[in-house]
Amino acid sequence: MQSIQLNPLGTMNQLSQLEVDLLNQSANGELYKVFRNCCLAVLYSGAEIDNSESIFAPHKDFNINLIIRERGVKIELLNPPELAFVDGVLIKGVHEHLFSVLRDLLHTGAKYSAQSLTFNSDSNYITHSVFDMLRHANAIRNTAELNMVVCWGGHSIGTVEYQYTKEVGYQLGLRELNICTGCGPGAMKGPMKGATIGHAKQRYKTGRYLGLTEPGIIAAEPPNAIVNELVIMPDIEKRLEAFIRLSHAIVIFPGGAGTAEELLYLIGIMLDEHNTQQVLPIILTGPEQSRGYFESLDKFIGATLGQVAQNLYEIVVGDASEVARVIKQKQQAMRDYRKDIGDSYDFNWSLKIATEFQSPFEPSHENMAALNLHFEQPKTELAAALRKAFSGIVAGNVKAEYVKLIEQQGPYQLSGEPLLMEMMDELLESFVTQQRMKLPGSNYVPCYQLTK
Amino acid sequence: MQSIQLNPLGTMNQLSQLEVDLLNQSANGELYKVFRNCCLAVLYSGAEIDNSESIFAPHKDFNINLIIRERGVKIELLNPPELAFVDGVLIKGVHEHLFSVLRDLLHTGAKYSAQSLTFNSDSNYITHSVFDMLRHANAIRNTAELNMVVCWGGHSIGTVEYQYTKEVGYQLGLRELNICTGCGPGAMKGPMKGATIGHAKQRYKTGRYLGLTEPGIIAAEPPNAIVNELVIMPDIEKRLEAFIRLSHAIVIFPGGAGTAEELLYLIGIMLDEHNTQQVLPIILTGPEQSRGYFESLDKFIGATLGQVAQNLYEIVVGDASEVARVIKQKQQAMRDYRKDIGDSYDFNWSLKIATEFQSPFEPSHENMAALNLHFEQPKTELAAALRKAFSGIVAGNVKAEYVKLIEQQGPYQLSGEPLLMEMMDELLESFVTQQRMKLPGSNYVPCYQLTK
Amino acid sequence: MQSIQLNPLGTMNQLSQLEVDLLNQSANGELYKVFRNCCLAVLYSGAEIDNSESIFAPHKDFNINLIIRERGVKIELLNPPELAFVDGVLIKGVHEHLFSVLRDLLHTGAKYSAQSLTFNSDSNYITHSVFDMLRHANAIRNTAELNMVVCWGGHSIGTVEYQYTKEVGYQLGLRELNICTGCGPGAMKGPMKGATIGHAKQRYKTGRYLGLTEPGIIAAEPPNAIVNELVIMPDIEKRLEAFIRLSHAIVIFPGGAGTAEELLYLIGIMLDEHNTQQVLPIILTGPEQSRGYFESLDKFIGATLGQVAQNLYEIVVGDASEVARVIKQKQQAMRDYRKDIGDSYDFNWSLKIATEFQSPFEPSHENMAALNLHFEQPKTELAAALRKAFSGIVAGNVKAEYVKLIEQQGPYQLSGEPLLMEMMDELLESFVTQQRMKLPGSNYVPCYQLTK
Amino acid sequence: MQSIQLNPLGTMNQLSQLEVDLLNQSANGELYKVFRNCCLAVLYSGAEIDNSESIFAPHKDFNINLIIRERGVKIELLNPPELAFVDGVLIKGVHEHLFSVLRDLLHTGAKYSAQSLTFNSDSNYITHSVFDMLRHANAIRNTAELNMVVCWGGHSIGTVEYQYTKEVGYQLGLRELNICTGCGPGAMKGPMKGATIGHAKQRYKTGRYLGLTEPGIIAAEPPNAIVNELVIMPDIEKRLEAFIRLSHAIVIFPGGAGTAEELLYLIGIMLDEHNTQQVLPIILTGPEQSRGYFESLDKFIGATLGQVAQNLYEIVVGDASEVARVIKQKQQAMRDYRKDIGDSYDFNWSLKIATEFQSPFEPSHENMAALNLHFEQPKTELAAALRKAFSGIVAGNVKAEYVKLIEQQGPYQLSGEPLLMEMMDELLESFVTQQRMKLPGSNYVPCYQLTK
Repeated sequence: MQSIQLNPLGTMNQLSQLEVDLLNQSANGELYKVFRNCCLAVLYSGAEIDNSESIFAPHKDFNINLIIRERGVKIELLNPPELAFVDGVLIKGVHEHLFSVLRDLLHTGAKYSAQSLTFNSDSNYITHSVFDMLRHANAIRNTAELNMVVCWGGHSIGTVEYQYTKEVGYQLGLRELNICTGCGPGAMKGPMKGATIGHAKQRYKTGRYLGLTEPGIIAAEPPNAIVNELVIMPDIEKRLEAFIRLSHAIVIFPGGAGTAEELLYLIGIMLDEHNTQQVLPIILTGPEQSRGYFESLDKFIGATLGQVAQNLYEIVVGDASEVARVIKQKQQAMRDYRKDIGDSYDFNWSLKIATEFQSPFEPSHENMAALNLHFEQPKTELAAALRKAFSGIVAGNVKAEYVKLIEQQGPYQLSGEPLLMEMMDELLESFVTQQRMKLPGSNYVPCYQLTK
Repeated sequence: MQSIQLNPLGTMNQLSQLEVDLLNQSANGELYKVFRNCCLAVLYSGAEIDNSESIFAPHKDFNINLIIRERGVKIELLNPPELAFVDGVLIKGVHEHLFSVLRDLLHTGAKYSAQSLTFNSDSNYITHSVFDMLRHANAIRNTAELNMVVCWGGHSIGTVEYQYTKEVGYQLGLRELNICTGCGPGAMKGPMKGATIGHAKQRYKTGRYLGLTEPGIIAAEPPNAIVNELVIMPDIEKRLEAFIRLSHAIVIFPGGAGTAEELLYLIGIMLDEHNTQQVLPIILTGPEQSRGYFESLDKFIGATLGQVAQNLYEIVVGDASEVARVIKQKQQAMRDYRKDIGDSYDFNWSLKIATEFQSPFEPSHENMAALNLHFEQPKTELAAALRKAFSGIVAGNVKAEYVKLIEQQGPYQLSGEPLLMEMMDELLESFVTQQRMKLPGSNYVPCYQLTK
Repeated sequence: MQSIQLNPLGTMNQLSQLEVDLLNQSANGELYKVFRNCCLAVLYSGAEIDNSESIFAPHKDFNINLIIRERGVKIELLNPPELAFVDGVLIKGVHEHLFSVLRDLLHTGAKYSAQSLTFNSDSNYITHSVFDMLRHANAIRNTAELNMVVCWGGHSIGTVEYQYTKEVGYQLGLRELNICTGCGPGAMKGPMKGATIGHAKQRYKTGRYLGLTEPGIIAAEPPNAIVNELVIMPDIEKRLEAFIRLSHAIVIFPGGAGTAEELLYLIGIMLDEHNTQQVLPIILTGPEQSRGYFESLDKFIGATLGQVAQNLYEIVVGDASEVARVIKQKQQAMRDYRKDIGDSYDFNWSLKIATEFQSPFEPSHENMAALNLHFEQPKTELAAALRKAFSGIVAGNVKAEYVKLIEQQGPYQLSGEPLLMEMMDELLESFVTQQRMKLPGSNYVPCYQLTK
Repeated sequence: MQSIQLNPLGTMNQLSQLEVDLLNQSANGELYKVFRNCCLAVLYSGAEIDNSESIFAPHKDFNINLIIRERGVKIELLNPPELAFVDGVLIKGVHEHLFSVLRDLLHTGAKYSAQSLTFNSDSNYITHSVFDMLRHANAIRNTAELNMVVCWGGHSIGTVEYQYTKEVGYQLGLRELNICTGCGPGAMKGPMKGATIGHAKQRYKTGRYLGLTEPGIIAAEPPNAIVNELVIMPDIEKRLEAFIRLSHAIVIFPGGAGTAEELLYLIGIMLDEHNTQQVLPIILTGPEQSRGYFESLDKFIGATLGQVAQNLYEIVVGDASEVARVIKQKQQAMRDYRKDIGDSYDFNWSLKIATEFQSPFEPSHENMAALNLHFEQPKTELAAALRKAFSGIVAGNVKAEYVKLIEQQGPYQLSGEPLLMEMMDELLESFVTQQRMKLPGSNYVPCYQLTK
C-alpha cells in the first residue's frame, strides 16, 4: 500500500495542540467521509469530469489520515491517484488544496458546525461566519483595488462558448482584473485560463484565480488547473453569499440550472429595497450563437420578476472587450460609493441579504413540492422561491446524496401557477436540449416533473 | 482640541462587524482605562522613563476613542503627546504599536477575558491561549531557524553594564540571532540596539526585536525605539510562558527583583522532572564589574535550590562573543531534539509548565504574607514561592495599582525560615545598594519588610 | 496622426547623456529602418503570422522616434497598430519588448556594431560579446538551478504536433524547468504555453519564457504572447551561440529548414573533440504521428555524420513526461561536471565553438553555390556546411532581404556529391510535403534548386 | 598561513572571461598595491581609526590574490585581520565591500584608467564616467524619491558635535531620507547611525547608507559599520562630483580642512551663472557650542566670496529637526524643477561643473605654491583656488603618499594676498585649536606654511 505524508501548509501550519485535537475528533467523526471525498476530488484537480462516481469508483482503496505530532498535524494519503504526482512528488498546488480542504472542512467547520449555525440563524452572525471563513482562507486581501470579477456559467458548454469565456477572461486579465468562479470546468475554467494570458502580457504577477466551492459540489466538479486559491464553503447559501460579497462585478455566461439559480439569487437580493444604491455591474454575455439563450432567459426574468429586474443587468453578445470595459468603467463609481458609506473595498458589508436567501434550503421532495411558485407575491420572494427550485434541480442532477434520493423516490414534483410552470418548463427544456445539464455524451434524465 | 484619526494596521485591518461591536463594548467598559494608559505609554515609545506618573501626569487631557464604520475600526487620539509625531504625522512604528495594543488588549482580550481564563484554569487551555495570542500577533513565524534569544535584565543598569548588553546584542546580531526582551529601557534595550548593528553588518534584513510586555508594566516601561514587534500579554504569568516557549536561548543580565523573578521562574520550570531532556541554553552574563552580582545570585540559588539548579545555567563574565558562541553551538542539538520528539521549532510545546507557574499570582498583602518560604519542600515549589515573592516586590515597586496599595497598607510582610529570610534580605539589599530597583536619581523606599 | 510617448523601462532607464547621443545617432542612421521594423513586429506580439509583409503593408504610416531629454530617452510611436493597446494604453509586456529592441539593436548594437565584430573575429571576443549582450538583457541570473530548456521546432506545425509541444511544456513546467525558444508561433509557443500551466500548478512564480530572436527573423515571427523576456541577437550565429551556452537541455520538435539548421549546428559543435565530456541532454521528440519525421531526420544524420552523431541525441516518441524526466535526471551530472571544471551554471563557457560556427554566413547566391557538400571531409566541417545550406534556405524563405534577392536572381543553386544531394532533396521534399516551410494556406515555392 | 577564498558578489558575479583576464592583469600590475591596501582598509570596517599606518603596520603579511576560474573570479585573502570574521566566517557586509573595491578599483578602473581620463578631459566625458561608475555600483536607483542627503563634516569631532550629527541623522531618518557621506568616522558616521533609528521607527526598510570614498582616503578612514553601499571613486574630484550630482540636499557639519574643501567646491559650482536656477538645499549646522565655528566660516566665505555666496546656504544652530524640515520642504520645488527641465530625479545632469572643478589637482609643492590666492579674480575661480589649497592640506594630513612627501620636502608653501593669507591662517588655526585636523590624542604638526 502506497503511503504519502504531507507537511501542513498555510494557516494549517500553525495550530495549537487543542486545535489539533479538535481536528482529529472531526476527522474521525461523521465528517470523515466528506473530508475523504473532497480530498479525493482535489487530487483530481485539472481533470475534466462532472460525475463524482468516475472519481470515486476506481479509488475505493483510497484513504486519508491525520497524523498528530506535538508540532501540529500532517496528512497521510493511502493509495492516492497517480495523476496528482510528478515523479513521485505531489504537485504543490494540489498539496495546498488538500490543506484548504482540511482548513475549511474540519478546522473552520468545527468552529461553525452546521448545528451552531442552525441555532445561530441571526443574519449578522451568518455574514460574520462567511467573512471569517474567507479571512481565515486569506481570501480577503485589503488591496483596495476592487478587481474581483465573479464569473458564473455552465460546466458543460460547447467549444464556441468555451472559447468565448476564454476571450472574456483574456480581456479581463488585460485590465488587471482577477477571476473568481465555482472552480470547475467549462465556464468556470475558461475565464481563468484567458486571464492568465492577459495577466502575463501585463506582467501582472499577483493574479488571483479563486475557486469557491462546497462539499456537495467539489467531487462532481474538481478544481480546474488554474485555481490558485480554493475555499470550500459549508453550503450553497454561504457559497453564494461569499461570491457576491467578494465580487466587484459579476459576469454570467450561458449555463444550466446552476447558473439560473445563481442569477435568480443575485436578482432577488439586488431587488431588495435596501440595495438600490449598490454599484455592482452584472453582465450576461456569450458569443453570437448564444444570443437565443440570453433572449429566453431575459424573457423569463421579465415575465416573472419584471422590468425592474431586467434593469439590473446588461446583456452583451459577442463582444468580449466590451464586457471588460463596462466593468472597468464602473470601478470608480463603486470606489466612491464604498468610500462614501464607509464600506470595505474587499467585502461588501452593506449589501442586505434577507434571511430567506441565507438559510440553507434542503431540497427534500417535501420542500420542493411546497415551493410557492405563484406570481402574486413580492418579487424578492418569488425570486427566492424560483432560486430554490433551480437549486433543488442542481442537487438532483449532481449531488451524490440527492441523486440517490431521486433514484429511490422518483423525480421532484414542482407545482404552481400554470403560466409560471409553463415558462419554467420551456426554460428547463431548452437547457436539456442545449446539453447544459450534463457534459455531452451522457444522456440526461430529468430529476423533476412540473405539474402545470 | 487636537484630534488624529488612524487607519487600522495588521490584523486589525480585517474585522467583521460582530468583532468591531465586541471591540467597542470592551473599549467602553472597564478595560477602557487600561487601554487608554497602554496607548499613552506606547505614544512614549523610545522615551527613557520608568515611572508611569511622568507619562500620565502631563496628559490628563489625553483621550482615545474607537470610531466604528462598516469597513471596520479606526482609532481617534485626542491631545496625543507631540513626541510621537513627525511634522504632524504619527511615526509608523508607534502607529503599529497602537494597533498592537488594540489587538491584544481589546480584541484578543475579549476572547480570553480574565474571567474565562479563571474558569479555564486547565494547563493545556492556558498554553493554547498563550500560543493563540502570539500567533494572532504574528509572532510565530515557522522559520525553523531557532534564533530567538530572550534577554532579561534590569531596566536600571549602569553605563558599563549597558555597554556590555549592547556588545552581547552585537555579537548575537552578527550570528543572525534575534532578540526578545521585556521591551523597556536598560538591559531590555541594549541587546536590541547592539543587534541592529550586527544584523546590518551581516545584511540580515529580517531582524526581529520582539517586545513582550503586559498592561501593568508597559506604562512604567514604554517600548524602546528598537522594538519592531510588540505583544501585550494579559498577565505576568502568560508573559513569562510566552518568553520561554518562544525562546531558543535565554540570556540574563544583571537586574533587580524582576530579573530575579524571571530567573526563579525559569529554574523552577527547568527543574521539573519532565523537562530534563530539554535543550535550552541559559547564560548569566555581565561585564567584569558585575562578577560580584552573579556570585551572590549564584550563591543564593545554590543555597536555596541546590547544585542541580546551578547546573542549569552557565555564568559568563566579560566575554560577549563567548555568550553568542555558546548559544550558536547549541542550535543543532536543539534542532535535533525538537525534531526527534516532533516538537515545533518556533514554540516549545513539549516544555512542561506546572499549574503553579501558570496561575496568576495576585500580590495582595495577604497572599504575600502567606507565601511558604521554607527549605523543606520540593525544589520546584520553593522556586515557585520565591518567584512569587519577587513578583510581588516588582509590583510594589512599579505597578501603579500596587504602589497605591503599599501607600495605603504599608510594605508587604514576608516571613519564613530565618536563614532563607536572611539570604533574601542580603540579595534584596544588594539590589538596592546597586540601584537596581529604580532608575538612578530617585530614592528607593522598599515596598517590603522581611521578618526573619 | 496618433502619437504615443513611452517612458524607458529596464536598463534603458539609466543612460548617460553620452549614451543617449550615441543611441540617437544610431536611430537616425541606417539602422533606423531595422529598428522601426523590429518595433512594428513587437507591436504585433501574440499575433499568429509568419510573413512580414502582412505586418508591414498595412502600416506604411507607422513611425518611431527617439525623444531626447536630460534625464534620458523616450520612444514616440506614430500611428501604432491598435492591437497592442488596451483602452488606449500600451500593453505592459509590449512596452517592455520595445525597450528590449532599443537596448539590443541600438544600444548594445552600437557597442558591437557589425563592423567591429568583423574586425574582431577572435572567438573569445565573439563569445564575450554574446555573454555581454545576454547579461545586459538580464538574461543571465546566477540561480545555479540549471533549469533552462531550449526548445526548437517549426513555427508551422499541425494541431497534433502543437498539442504535443504544449504537453511537453506542461511536463517541463511541472518540474520547474524554464523555456527558451526562438520566440515565434508553433513549436516556439507551445512549450511556453504548456509550461505556464505546469508552473502555475507548482506555484512556481519565477517562470522564464525567454525568446531569442534576431532582426531578420522577428518581423516574420513576432514574439508570442507568453514570452516574458525578449533578446534580439545581432545575427543567426550569435543567436545560436546564445541558445546553446544558456541551455541546460535542448528539445527538438518537428520543424522545417530552420530546425534542421539548428540541429546540424548543435551536432557540429558537440562532435568537436573538445566537447566530448560535455553533459547536455538533447532530445528529439514529437507525437506518435511524427515518428516518420524523426526517422528520416535520424537517417539523414546517420548517413551524413555517422553513428557518433546519432549517439548525441535521444529520440522520444509520444511520451511527453519521459522527455521531462530524462532532462531532470541529467541535472545532477551537469551540475557536477560544471562544478568540477569550474564552469558557470548559467553560461556554458567551456563549450568549444569553432570559428566556422561563429562567423556569420552570408547566404548570397555565390556563397550558397560554393558550399562544400561532399562526404569526404571532417564530420564537423560537413555539419558546418550542411547547417549553412539550411540556414540559407531559411533566409530565402522568410527574411525579407533574401526573399527579394530570390525574386531577382532566382533560386539558390546547391551542388555537391550526388548521393548527398539526393538525401537533401528527400529531406527538403518531405518538409515541403508536410507543410513545414510555411504556415498552412500559403503555397510554398522553393527558394533553392539542388543539382544532383 | 591562513587563507580564505571568497565567492564574488554583486556585479562581480557575472564577468566574462575577457573581463576576468583584464581584471587579473590590473591586479598584478601597479594597481595591485592600492588594491591590497583598500581591501585591508575595508577589512577594518567599523574600526575607529584615522591613520593608515595603524592598519598597515601590523599586517605586513597580509596578501590578496585573484583566483581565476571559467566561471569567473574569486578573491583569496592571506592572513586577513581577525576582526572582520565571526567564528571564522567573513562578515557579509565586509565581503560585499571587498567586491566593491574589486569592482571600482580594478574592473571599472581598468575601463577608466587615469590615463584615458587625462586624455579625455572633456567635461561631458568625465560626467559620463562618474555616472557610469555609480550606475555600475548600483548607486543610481530610479526611485524618484529625491531623498539622498549628503552629509559632510569632520572625521574628528567632539562628543557633543557627534551626538548632534546623530540627532540630525535621526530627524532625517524619521522623514525617510537617506544618507550619503565620505564613509569614515565622526560626522561621516553619526548621521548614518541616527538615521538607522529613524528609519526603524518608520519601518523604512530600504534605508541607504552610501559611502563615497577614494583610494587615497579609504585607508585612513575605513568605512564605518553602518555603510551598506560602498563606492570608491578614482580621485577626489570625481568623488566630489558624485556627491553633488547624487545629492538632493547637502548638510555640512563642523569639520577641518576636508570639510572646508567640500564647502568651497560646492560654493564655487553653485556660483556658476548656469546654476542659478538649481534647487539644492545647503545647510551648515552644529550644536549650540559650534556656533562660533560657523560664524568664522561664514565670515571667511563672506569676506572672500561675498554675500552672494553666503546666500547659497542656511546656517541652523542647535535645531536638528529644523534641518530635516527645511530639506523636506524643498523636495517639491526640486521635483518640479527637475521635471520642468526634463532632468533625472536621481542624478543632477543639468548642474554645470566647470572644468577647473573636474580636473584632478595634484598637490605637489610646486602646484600648491602656484595657487592664485588673490581677491581680484572671478569668484568661481577664487573658490576653485581656495578649494585646491584645502585639498592639498587634506592630502598632506592624511594621504600616505603626501604625508611622505611633506616629510621629505617640508611643509607646503602657500602665498598670496596678505589679507587673504591672514584670513586663511585664522581659519586653519582655529581648526588646529579645535582639534579638527586629527583625532584627539595625536599632536597635529601643520603640513603647510602661509607666507603672508
